[in-house]
Amino acid sequence: MSHAPRLTLELWFDFASTYSYIAAGRIEQLARAARVGVVWRPFLLGPIFQKQGWNDSPFNLYAPKGVYMWRDMDRLCSRYGLPFKRPSVFPRNSVRAARVALIGAETAWGPAFVQAVYRASFGDDLDIRDPDVLVMLLDDQGLSGRDVLAEAESPAWKPRLREQTERAEQLGIFGAPSFVVGSELFWGSDRLEQALDFVGQPRLL
Amino acid sequence: MSHAPRLTLELWFDFASTYSYIAAGRIEQLARAARVGVVWRPFLLGPIFQKQGWNDSPFNLYAPKGVYMWRDMDRLCSRYGLPFKRPSVFPRNSVRAARVALIGAETAWGPAFVQAVYRASFGDDLDIRDPDVLVMLLDDQGLSGRDVLAEAESPAWKPRLREQTERAEQLGIFGAPSFVVGSELFWGSDRLEQALDFVGQPRLL
Repeated sequence: MSHAPRLTLELWFDFASTYSYIAAGRIEQLARAARVGVVWRPFLLGPIFQKQGWNDSPFNLYAPKGVYMWRDMDRLCSRYGLPFKRPSVFPRNSVRAARVALIGAETAWGPAFVQAVYRASFGDDLDIRDPDVLVMLLDDQGLSGRDVLAEAESPAWKPRLREQTERAEQLGIFGAPSFVVGSELFWGSDRLEQALDFVGQPRLL
Repeated sequence: MSHAPRLTLELWFDFASTYSYIAAGRIEQLARAARVGVVWRPFLLGPIFQKQGWNDSPFNLYAPKGVYMWRDMDRLCSRYGLPFKRPSVFPRNSVRAARVALIGAETAWGPAFVQAVYRASFGDDLDIRDPDVLVMLLDDQGLSGRDVLAEAESPAWKPRLREQTERAEQLGIFGAPSFVVGSELFWGSDRLEQALDFVGQPRLL
């Protein structure tokens, strides 16, 4: 009776990343249609960008790229029916939210929480670093937000986000969103369809 | 009796750019199906990258990005049926070829010449800076390659590539390939379909 998909695709995302919002908003419907399971992998772009010599988002460092990205977000969110309001702070500190999402990744509430954090940040311009915001979003999932947040920041869980970020680097990830299918890496929300195609019929080159 | 498309899309490309090769290889069939005309706009990424503080391709400057790009080129060229051999020199100096393409952009042989230059560089690993290679590719178009090359490097034409590059900058272009539809900019070969959609039904935001 099981219809559980055998094959999976990993979505590597950072809550600070605008295009990860698009990917997170699109992935569930497309993966379901392709009968592919999604594994949610929060990580931090900051340490990876630092190794590229960047101490800020490339969209802030390179002005024309930033101008383009905001316009592109308008267009893409309109196209995909995602609410969008340019956040008053960019990039937002995503560490705390990512720690919670790391716990969520092993639970049933994880995907909905990820979507909720993204919509709070890019749809409602809320500060997702604020513990009260995260508690509210967790409570909305029927959880005790305070308890989950405390667990996320406990010594048992806290180091795991760093480990996950190191794993991202080992996988060759240099930006977000990234999709990983086996040993294949795809970068950018517009590669989602291609990554899903690849799950079903990997092209051996 | 005319079936000439009323609407056009500009393809801004640099012969040094790997993803521009993909875009150039895909655009004619897709544009024809969408009944959109293509305007070919060669320009130089070098001066634009320099203003971003880069004196080399970002794929050379950021190693993981480079590793990804070459793998991605393998996959994409396989997917789209384009010949691909990783060039022995990257990025290749594209100035001379771009000057010729600028003349070609106003002629019937332009698009075929662009495709031929890209295939020479990324399919056959030929040095497109070499005048003999360019003459050969022009001769293949039924032209006098020597004459066209001399014209491209004449005082009347030579400054125009710089002007075109300045225009790219004014349009907010920061990478290649870029597609321009009116005042809208789309970056990356994977945005071609979206840019073509936009020609027919611009979404007013």
